[in-house]
Amino acid sequence: MLRVYMPGDWSDEALRGLKAGLEEDVELSAGAPRPDDYEMLVCGRPDREMLEAPSLRWYVVPWAGLPASTRELLADFPHLAVHNLHHNAPAAAELAVGLLLAAAKRIVLADRKMRECDWTIRYSPENAMLIGGSSILVVGMGEIGRRVARTCRAMGAEVVGMARHVEAGEVREGIPVLPPEDLDGQLPGIDVLVLCVPLTEETRGMIDARRLAAMPRRAVLVNVGRGGLVEEEALYEVLRDGRIGAAGIDVWYSYPRSEGSRRNTRPSRFPFGELDNVVMSPHRGGAMNVSELELLRARKLAGLINAAAGGGQVPHRVDPELGY
Amino acid sequence: MLRVYMPGDWSDEALRGLKAGLEEDVELSAGAPRPDDYEMLVCGRPDREMLEAPSLRWYVVPWAGLPASTRELLADFPHLAVHNLHHNAPAAAELAVGLLLAAAKRIVLADRKMRECDWTIRYSPENAMLIGGSSILVVGMGEIGRRVARTCRAMGAEVVGMARHVEAGEVREGIPVLPPEDLDGQLPGIDVLVLCVPLTEETRGMIDARRLAAMPRRAVLVNVGRGGLVEEEALYEVLRDGRIGAAGIDVWYSYPRSEGSRRNTRPSRFPFGELDNVVMSPHRGGAMNVSELELLRARKLAGLINAAAGGGQVPHRVDPELGY
Repeated sequence: MLRVYMPGDWSDEALRGLKAGLEEDVELSAGAPRPDDYEMLVCGRPDREMLEAPSLRWYVVPWAGLPASTRELLADFPHLAVHNLHHNAPAAAELAVGLLLAAAKRIVLADRKMRECDWTIRYSPENAMLIGGSSILVVGMGEIGRRVARTCRAMGAEVVGMARHVEAGEVREGIPVLPPEDLDGQLPGIDVLVLCVPLTEETRGMIDARRLAAMPRRAVLVNVGRGGLVEEEALYEVLRDGRIGAAGIDVWYSYPRSEGSRRNTRPSRFPFGELDNVVMSPHRGGAMNVSELELLRARKLAGLINAAAGGGQVPHRVDPELGY
Repeated sequence: MLRVYMPGDWSDEALRGLKAGLEEDVELSAGAPRPDDYEMLVCGRPDREMLEAPSLRWYVVPWAGLPASTRELLADFPHLAVHNLHHNAPAAAELAVGLLLAAAKRIVLADRKMRECDWTIRYSPENAMLIGGSSILVVGMGEIGRRVARTCRAMGAEVVGMARHVEAGEVREGIPVLPPEDLDGQLPGIDVLVLCVPLTEETRGMIDARRLAAMPRRAVLVNVGRGGLVEEEALYEVLRDGRIGAAGIDVWYSYPRSEGSRRNTRPSRFPFGELDNVVMSPHRGGAMNVSELELLRARKLAGLINAAAGGGQVPHRVDPELGY
């Protein structure tokens, strides 16, 4: 018998979907109150008490990534196997491609002008980059990055990936994958940079003022990883000054801390909202808002729980020290 | 010797690119004045005099499609071989995918809200459709449609094409292609409808009120063909009433008639600009604004001219009666 505890808000639909997928030897407790003991905890931001359950063995973050506060807390529980879920990779990859095309082709600006009956963008030069034939670097070749790479290649782009553990000359699904040391060499020649990596000590601030300056003036930057990958002030300045072409940004520097602040939280200290060459997205990569995705998550979670219950290999193990 | 006349505005860059690609036995006259005679005319909207050159044999529209006024005029010149260019297929296909993702994921609305520091769309249900696993019908499997189909398939969608001349059970590049008679049967089951067909007597108004009503409420419509494919009032009404999910529209019902009216031409009799579930684009599929595309056009045009000069088969023949 595997006892699983899931605090937090799960829709009835998602819970029904999850329960329908579970083997008989799984006992699931959702919401309050917290049971005294369980082998598995499914929760994005657990408190210390939840992690102190005597039989706890598996701790599961029900999305991709590992919050920094949780990571710190986990340092005191080294015996736990930490896992996460990647059910949202298709949604995040699609959003990345959507932000790329919206930024590269000024779709948002053109829409705003058309609502004012202004067609001039139709006739103005140099406001739409062609993806076909362009050079695209996808940093992070996990489930999201691989999907982005595949889609861009279908549009005729020359795509190169970048990943942490690479063999010399490695090719994945037909896409050459380079190690992080090659980043500086790549930047001057790329048209598009897509960031799909988690935020870790290694990746924080990886795209700084120097690297932004190394990109061509036409280049488009897409960030669906975490805000902290790109230096905030440097990003604002290169966009404001037109030193890169455009950006599609889903991940930010400050977030609403409560339900009441969802309508009045500035995503940055800098006024990105005044710029025409940025497409702003409210961290939707995880796509909490797609109901089919909740069901997908339930299905993936059921698979993970069943694997633990059956003694099989539990997928998506995370190293809390590395953060991914 | 092949004499080619190209009236109209060509950038110096495009002309240089074109001339560099031409064989030696081609004599090119661009702009005014009109020469007395030539074998080939390259011009989107010729006047009668241009078509009356005594040796004229090939008439080339330097983009995809054939304007209705030109089509009428050509009825008096049945001896001419009419051709057009498809250099803009990659740009048009990319715009179609960009409009699809922007509409399906409310990228434009989310951007507008974020500029007001409003993150609520992040937390609201049912405002982002997943392309992966969705059913997409691409009407028109020419160079644009095939590219759209390929890109959507790379995102994991189930894509079906529709084309005029199809064999039973036909599959092109792995995508099943159905005849137009199957349209009504397909509509109730699709998530996305992408229109990539030219406007002809057969296709005018093909998506009317009845067919819009047959689509699911979540469905997304993308039109990069011509405005007249979709009934104007019916489209406005289903979007206003939320009877379809969203639309990405690049082609319209009225256009600026002069340079002076580019800032004040309403694209429709109906106020599409008041709707949040439409992405409005100022007929950019042809992407006259991409300078690399001008060079691509010059290259394609050089190939076509050289084929005529060398006595080979001239590509992209158009039937002026059918209009494509």
